[in-house]
Amino acid sequence: MSLITPVILVGGSGKRLWPLSRESMPKQFVPLLGKQSTFQQTLERVADRTLFAKPVIATNDAYRFMAEQQAKDIGVEIDILVEPSRRDSGPAMAAAAAYAQSQGAQAVLTLASDHLVIGIGAFLDACREGLAAVRQGGIVTFGIPPTEPKVDYGYIRPGSEHIGTVLKVAAFVEKPNAQKALQYISEGLLWNSGNFLFPPALLLSEMARFEPEMAAAAREAVDKAKRTGSTVFLDAEAFAKAPAKSIDYAVMERTDKCWVVPARFRWSDLGTWDALLDVGQADSAGNVTEGPVELDHVRNSYIRSDGPLTAVIGVDEVVVVAMGDAVLVGHRDNLPRLKDVVQRMSDSKHKAATEHAVMHRPWGSYQDIDRGERFRAKRLTVKPGGKLSLQSHNRRAEHWVVVKGTAEVVLDGKILTLHENESTYIPIGGVHRLSNPGSEMLEVVEVQTGDYLEEDDIVRYEDIYARV
Amino acid sequence: MSLITPVILVGGSGKRLWPLSRESMPKQFVPLLGKQSTFQQTLERVADRTLFAKPVIATNDAYRFMAEQQAKDIGVEIDILVEPSRRDSGPAMAAAAAYAQSQGAQAVLTLASDHLVIGIGAFLDACREGLAAVRQGGIVTFGIPPTEPKVDYGYIRPGSEHIGTVLKVAAFVEKPNAQKALQYISEGLLWNSGNFLFPPALLLSEMARFEPEMAAAAREAVDKAKRTGSTVFLDAEAFAKAPAKSIDYAVMERTDKCWVVPARFRWSDLGTWDALLDVGQADSAGNVTEGPVELDHVRNSYIRSDGPLTAVIGVDEVVVVAMGDAVLVGHRDNLPRLKDVVQRMSDSKHKAATEHAVMHRPWGSYQDIDRGERFRAKRLTVKPGGKLSLQSHNRRAEHWVVVKGTAEVVLDGKILTLHENESTYIPIGGVHRLSNPGSEMLEVVEVQTGDYLEEDDIVRYEDIYARV
Repeated sequence: MSLITPVILVGGSGKRLWPLSRESMPKQFVPLLGKQSTFQQTLERVADRTLFAKPVIATNDAYRFMAEQQAKDIGVEIDILVEPSRRDSGPAMAAAAAYAQSQGAQAVLTLASDHLVIGIGAFLDACREGLAAVRQGGIVTFGIPPTEPKVDYGYIRPGSEHIGTVLKVAAFVEKPNAQKALQYISEGLLWNSGNFLFPPALLLSEMARFEPEMAAAAREAVDKAKRTGSTVFLDAEAFAKAPAKSIDYAVMERTDKCWVVPARFRWSDLGTWDALLDVGQADSAGNVTEGPVELDHVRNSYIRSDGPLTAVIGVDEVVVVAMGDAVLVGHRDNLPRLKDVVQRMSDSKHKAATEHAVMHRPWGSYQDIDRGERFRAKRLTVKPGGKLSLQSHNRRAEHWVVVKGTAEVVLDGKILTLHENESTYIPIGGVHRLSNPGSEMLEVVEVQTGDYLEEDDIVRYEDIYARV
Repeated sequence: MSLITPVILVGGSGKRLWPLSRESMPKQFVPLLGKQSTFQQTLERVADRTLFAKPVIATNDAYRFMAEQQAKDIGVEIDILVEPSRRDSGPAMAAAAAYAQSQGAQAVLTLASDHLVIGIGAFLDACREGLAAVRQGGIVTFGIPPTEPKVDYGYIRPGSEHIGTVLKVAAFVEKPNAQKALQYISEGLLWNSGNFLFPPALLLSEMARFEPEMAAAAREAVDKAKRTGSTVFLDAEAFAKAPAKSIDYAVMERTDKCWVVPARFRWSDLGTWDALLDVGQADSAGNVTEGPVELDHVRNSYIRSDGPLTAVIGVDEVVVVAMGDAVLVGHRDNLPRLKDVVQRMSDSKHKAATEHAVMHRPWGSYQDIDRGERFRAKRLTVKPGGKLSLQSHNRRAEHWVVVKGTAEVVLDGKILTLHENESTYIPIGGVHRLSNPGSEMLEVVEVQTGDYLEEDDIVRYEDIYARV
């Protein structure tokens, strides 16, 4: 057994890091720290091909294009395993294990896509050390030595049995209260980071003991899966039969085969904005800042702007995150409430609760730049080779101005090539398609006019991304 | 003497209410409370033409178009007196008095354009009561019964002599410390609101006693003024000879002719955001909110959004003002620091420190809506009858799409009329002009492309607003 197959789990809508993270592009895809997203950082973490095989991304239909693009942007090849419905982490891990097994994997490493790891050498060491236990029939988790009495993490009680540095797990322990958390730290318990290394056959056989339906459904979903290129679509009917349950409840807390590697890397699940203050470079007043911000008498705060000029005066222990279309101001101690607050805004149909200004599509992205009574302006960004669907609109005309790159425009069967500083007009009802035949990005300013300007005024005739 | 000539002083860059108020459009022109600006509310306050004559607006060249437009928008006729330089309130009031006198005014009421008055009936009563003292040769100010020991206002000590309800001023008192302020309140002192009612001849003769140069310079600036329509341009050379000094130092604190009407209206100078919390409608948690905001465990705070969806969690006594391009977060107690913070941001060349996203021009306004490497998109709004200058650009081409109204486009001597959903193209070097020949607003989306896209790439050939 020479290689570990990394399976990166990409789900979750990331409300707790709103407004940077929203349902339309959740936190794992957002560059929270530095220029890469945590998803990309996770791919980089398992890039050593002498230790790791090609990563498998377990995700859903909404996020698969984004995962594909972000992997491509950093030059990493991936396979994508598309979950047809949300069934919690148990079925997701079972399907990933069954798929990896079908590809001949001997060891699988499941990783969250939205965690931060500092110290990649120590991380690789932990994987290698864990392999020793995996070889002896163990399921290995990564335990993080606590730095504070966190109440929002589960804990692991290590036993005395060990294989090298890897300890047998005596018990998984639920999230404690503050007093218990202090006690756990003094007793040497570790945080449960929720990432696992295991032989896929073992995970499935243990699951078959405790959750036979789940194991069977996952296997069947893989057996009946359809592959298109590097994307594998799990069978929807089979997958839906799996009970929705977390892997902890389904297997980990019930099996006696769990081991834990005490991690020597720094880890954060980036669960709240507070984590960014913990891991960022603070100035002498204890502030972590990013973007155009001006502070005056501010301490121990995380102040971030992704655009607006932001002045903060005379406050302590706060988080301010400013974007052009959404702003968060919160006291550090109250950030766990953010999830509910975002849900309330979402229930009130505030678009910015769930959608970013930039909306990603398989062909690229678009961004609303202006809107009036009978018009709407967007910037369209089309990737090299990207092609919007062949479409028409019943209630709007469109003016396109190419501001970067080269556009190929099809209109009522005629083909037109437009370069920077050239424009064209799509009348109401015109059957049209925009694509990028060039090798650089294409950017188009689109001005729509009409009496109805929503996304659902679209008739699609053809689509290379199968969205017709 | 039947009428009072209101003189509304419009100056000041309004840093203390940033980001809503910025140098490009300071607080008196911003709708802070309700749909009208405080300038418009001030015009409405003196709209009773049986008591008040046509208002005179004393302002500068930068703000005169805005004053004209905002008066027109609410159907109020005004005269505009343009100050060629900033010389503080003494010369401004002297020039206003001299101008009003030249127009035959018997009584002048000078009003700040950025104050809030609640209780217009009581305000009018105060003016009428004040007239009794004016008729007997008095300069009358409006004294506000204090509601708290403010340290940022000057105070007035009333004497015992009176004409009706109007009391002789015993002394003007400088801004006190907190302890003194409490003492002043217990002694019955009043806040000095800085608005005055007086016979123009008397103000000028008193000024001639104490500040002869100032009085002479103001008279000369009026005598040599040039009138264009309803706009009067004070003579720059003459006006510049007036020493820069406030009216309080120049006259009010030195003359023995001052009287005070104790006001029965509610008043605020809207000096900091805190004032908006004082005068707004607070909810049961003491919060005043405006726009798309979601609060959770927030108390005694002013939370305002003019666009971005804004979530505020677990903070007390704060002010949050969110706009698409600028955000303020501050503790109430520290708001006096805002002025310095805005100055720092301005010194650092942050555009949003001084300029709004919407920039006003005599012909209407424009707004940046997008910007990239080699392009810039704007929305242009042109008033009925508005006409941009006849111009050309050396380094950019422009695409115009009409999204509302009718445009007349001149390009290299040819005239073109465009309606909604029609577009045209202005090549580099093309001599062009955009105007609105219609009776409704014209809106145009402009997409500029080129290697240099700043405002200063413009050659102006003709301009109806004399900006060539």
